[in-house]
Parts: sequence; C-alpha cells; structure tokens
Amino acid sequence: MGTVVALSGQVGGAKLADGLYRLRGRDLAVVVNTGDDFEHLGLAFSPDLDTVLYALAGVANPASGWEPAGETRALHSMLKSLGGPDRPILGDKSLAAPILRAHGLREDRSLTEITLEFCRHLGIEARVLPMSDERVRTHVLTAGGAVPFPEYFNELACDPPVLGFQYAGAEDARLTDAVLDVLHSNDLEAVVLGPCNPFHSIRPILEVNGMRQLLRKRGAPVIAVTPIVGGKALTGSAGKMMQELGREVSARSVAMEYYKLIDGFVIDAADEDQADGIRACGVQVVIAPTVMRGLEDRVGLAQTVLDFARAIRARRLQEA
Amino acid sequence: MGTVVALSGQVGGAKLADGLYRLRGRDLAVVVNTGDDFEHLGLAFSPDLDTVLYALAGVANPASGWEPAGETRALHSMLKSLGGPDRPILGDKSLAAPILRAHGLREDRSLTEITLEFCRHLGIEARVLPMSDERVRTHVLTAGGAVPFPEYFNELACDPPVLGFQYAGAEDARLTDAVLDVLHSNDLEAVVLGPCNPFHSIRPILEVNGMRQLLRKRGAPVIAVTPIVGGKALTGSAGKMMQELGREVSARSVAMEYYKLIDGFVIDAADEDQADGIRACGVQVVIAPTVMRGLEDRVGLAQTVLDFARAIRARRLQEA
Repeated sequence: MGTVVALSGQVGGAKLADGLYRLRGRDLAVVVNTGDDFEHLGLAFSPDLDTVLYALAGVANPASGWEPAGETRALHSMLKSLGGPDRPILGDKSLAAPILRAHGLREDRSLTEITLEFCRHLGIEARVLPMSDERVRTHVLTAGGAVPFPEYFNELACDPPVLGFQYAGAEDARLTDAVLDVLHSNDLEAVVLGPCNPFHSIRPILEVNGMRQLLRKRGAPVIAVTPIVGGKALTGSAGKMMQELGREVSARSVAMEYYKLIDGFVIDAADEDQADGIRACGVQVVIAPTVMRGLEDRVGLAQTVLDFARAIRARRLQEA
Repeated sequence: MGTVVALSGQVGGAKLADGLYRLRGRDLAVVVNTGDDFEHLGLAFSPDLDTVLYALAGVANPASGWEPAGETRALHSMLKSLGGPDRPILGDKSLAAPILRAHGLREDRSLTEITLEFCRHLGIEARVLPMSDERVRTHVLTAGGAVPFPEYFNELACDPPVLGFQYAGAEDARLTDAVLDVLHSNDLEAVVLGPCNPFHSIRPILEVNGMRQLLRKRGAPVIAVTPIVGGKALTGSAGKMMQELGREVSARSVAMEYYKLIDGFVIDAADEDQADGIRACGVQVVIAPTVMRGLEDRVGLAQTVLDFARAIRARRLQEA
C-alpha cells in the first residue's frame, strides 16, 4: 500500500480524511486549504486546518464537526463584557490552536512546522499539511466588491450573490517541501479531492502555483467525491454559490469544475442518472453512499475511493 | 467629598479598592502595579490590573479574588493537548483581557486607554489606571540571579530565598497624564496604600520616576493598611519575603517600609501592642479589623481609612 494524499477543506473534507486515516494511518497526508485563514485579535485562525486536526485526533464534536466536543464559550462572553468584538463566536477549546499558531508564526516558525507539531502532540500519525506556508486568501466577488471569505461567511452571512472568486497570493505562493515530498512519493497511490465546496475549499489548493500541474504529472489516479447530493449541498453554501454562478446545482456540475484534473468521480445513488453524462466527459464514475453520518460511513466512503483508485490503476495497466 | 486615590496590587489591594469604590464611586481612582505584568504566547497579562477590574465589576470569584467567578479551564486543557506550555494555568474568562490587551497594544493603544475602555464596558465608574504606560518589571534577586517576578511566582513557586528586588524600567518610566491628573486633583482627599505585598505590589508604583515625591508634595493624607496581621501575611508571600530580607515579620515592619511617605497606618487589633512603636516614628495609627472576608468588611475598612484621613486633615487644621 502506498501514500494517499487527500485535499481537504471544511467538514466534508475532514470527515473523508478521517475515514482514510482509519484505513491508512501514517500513509495518509492531508493537504488543507488555508485560503479561509484569517487574523483576529492577533490570533491566527485556520478553520480548515483545525477541522482536520480535530477530526483525525478524534476530538471533534460529531454534530458540528468543526469544533472540539464539549465546547464552552466562557472566554467569548468575557470578551464581550470587556468590549471586545462579537464575532467570531468561537469556543474556549477552539481558541487554543489560534493562540499557539499566532505565537509560533510570530516566532518565525512556518505554518507547516506548527501544524505538524500539533499532529505530534495530538497523536495524529498522518501528515496534516497546509497547502502553502505563504499567504493565500480567497475573496468572494460580489456586487459590492471583493470580500475576504471569512467576512463573507461571518459578517455577511453568505448573503450577497457570488459573482466569482479570487485567490489572492496563490499565483506567487510556493508549494512547501512537505507537500512536494508527499506528492513526489514513489509509492503515490491516489490523490483524493474531498466532498467540499469546490470554489473555496478545493480550488484555492489547486491554484497554488504548480499544484494542478504536479497532480496531473504525477500520474496517480485523482479522484473527487461529490459535495452535491440530489441537487443540494450536503452542508455549507456550495449549492447557493453554484446557482449564483449560473451553474447547474448537481454532482455533474462539480465534476466539470475538476475537468481535466480528475480521473474518477464518486457520486451518490441519488444522482445515478448523471453518471453517463460525467463518463461522457472522460471521467470514470463510481456510485456509492456519500453521506457520512458516523465513523462507519467515513471508513466506507474512504474504502470506496481507494478501491476506485486501484481499479483505475488496474485498467491503465491492462490498457498499457 | 473629594478624590480618593488607592495604590493597589494583588487581591488585598483590590478588595480595599472595592470597598472604597462602594463608598465613593466615580471619585475613586486606583493606581495599579504593572511590575508583575508579563507576556506569554503573545498575550499581555496584567494580573494586578485584572484583579482590580474583576473586583470593581463585581465579577471576581469571592474565594480566590484574582479570577472571575465561574471560571473554566477548557482552553488550557486544549492548549496542553496541542503541546502548549503547562503554565500559567489561567481560566477561559481570564484569557479574554490578555487577548484584547495584547491586541490593543499591538495597535499602539496605551495600556491606560485599554484599561479605561475595559472599565467603561464593565460599567466601572472609578478610574482604574496602570501606574505607567511604560514597561516596568519587578525582578526578585535570588542566589541564582535576578528573576522576573512572574517566573519567581510560577516556575519557582516562590521557593528561592529573596535577597532583594529590582524595578527594571521604573526610573525611566513616565507617570501617565491620567495618573498625574488624579494626583493633581484640587480636591485630593486621601492616598491609600492597600494591604498588599510592600515589595512587589506597592514599591514598584512608588518607584515610578516622580511618584513618591508627588505623593508627598500633594499634601493629602497618605494612609497605608497593613498586609501583616499577627505576624503573618494575610495572603501571598509577604511574610516569607520579609523574613528572608532579615526584617521582622510584623505590621510595624511594613510601616517602616513606608517611612517618610505615610501619615497614617491601619493595623489590626491583633497587633495593638505595636501601635506605640509605630507612633514613635511619627506615623499615626488606627486599630481596626483589617481582615476582609465579605463586602461588608471591605466597605468597613474603606470607611475606617477615609475617617482616618479626615481626622488627620482635621488635626492639621487645628495645628496650623
């Protein structure tokens, strides 16, 4: 068995990464979106990194997914009493990583180094890697101008129609040595795009200078899992955004976002009727349960993805 | 009724300040020791300022006095899981002020400005003022060298014998406009030195360039309250320190620390036998209950101090 690389953002990506981790342990590397990172009160928030860390450490709240279980909000209430800002309303445990991360960054440690240190202390054997140590920021283009994603999400509550996205800094951002190492693994077995918002979770990773080309060049099967089931986003605003961007809100539409990048696409049984259309574009399709409620679902979907990758490799060998 | 200025550090000082506040509201200004301030993980800790703020806002834990009531420690436990340092073990609510303070300081707001903003939001009408906006740091001199007070207190658990104290930066620190304003009030009625450790709570304030001279020059009665009752410190390590410095552990000994500065000294009935000795040094003495268990005790002691000041002023008028 070889190295598996998962691209992840949001809760969906973290859940699938968790499933892969249960199957592969230290052979998994998760490359995580940092385009939604932000600074607030001098703390360094990396929502997608923390979501993956909590999932893999087994400490995530199973209901929300993005914060540790048993979260409390004492600090936030005191912050408000002292005249601090109202948002973001993050719990006490959720502030630990942003405090340590900001401190580490101020001491000139890289985001990768800090994140791997978190992994070590949390007992996570997989490598959780920021997509870059350099600043990339996803902006949502609206009629009112370009808005940093966290502001769009928090202050604007995802309300203004989305006209497009910008990934500020991505073009100049460097792939880290750690990311290059895992993608250059001799035994690279599969690259998995998690069931996340394609626009602000996966695209920012792909936009880091050289990433898309490297994924293609390496030749390992690239497989994506749909975040859209039955014409709706499982969580988050992917559906709303697709509609506003004038795209069909469907699994097929997500597959088209990854056109020329992916070899295979996993869709839900609810969207079986779209399989042929996707195949017609040269993308192989597997139909499987994609809704992850419990750990069993995560592991099941992870196994589906790994089997899919093996099948693709087998077919290539046959054809060669 | 005029302006009352209290000098404060630690819980004892905060409790007396609270008593004075209940009697005088907006006519009280509390000048607070910042010599024990420290930075940790990029947060700005001001233990004595926060203790006063919690006391005056009525949110302090009545048992400990130095942290908000109903404190939890979720953030700290997560911090440890992530490999963060073990100390200081501060609660969730207690981290709010250090986060906001650090952020404010990085934005070039002064410590005074930040603290007054906290007062405003907490509904505190008194002025809580840091002794200086500039950096003063109390160091404990030990056989192993000079140790910053927070390190002496936390890491060394007050263990090494104390050979002396240094107040780094005090000589060059400026009295703030806010402190100068209250001390120059035309109606300055009394200056009160709280029942705190004389070495690392009151002395640092007095060492700020010009403070001691200004207190004398203003002419309002300066009254101190003993932190030593029956030969023991009420809380903290004042007793241990006095012993190690070769001083008698007694109320009289504390009075001598303030020699030539104070006009009056409040001692407990337990130390009645020391009254004459203190008076012999030209310091007037009032014997009163000095142990503050509940709010009633705080207000009672505050009233004793204010009555004492009035009596001193009356006697001066008689003598003039």
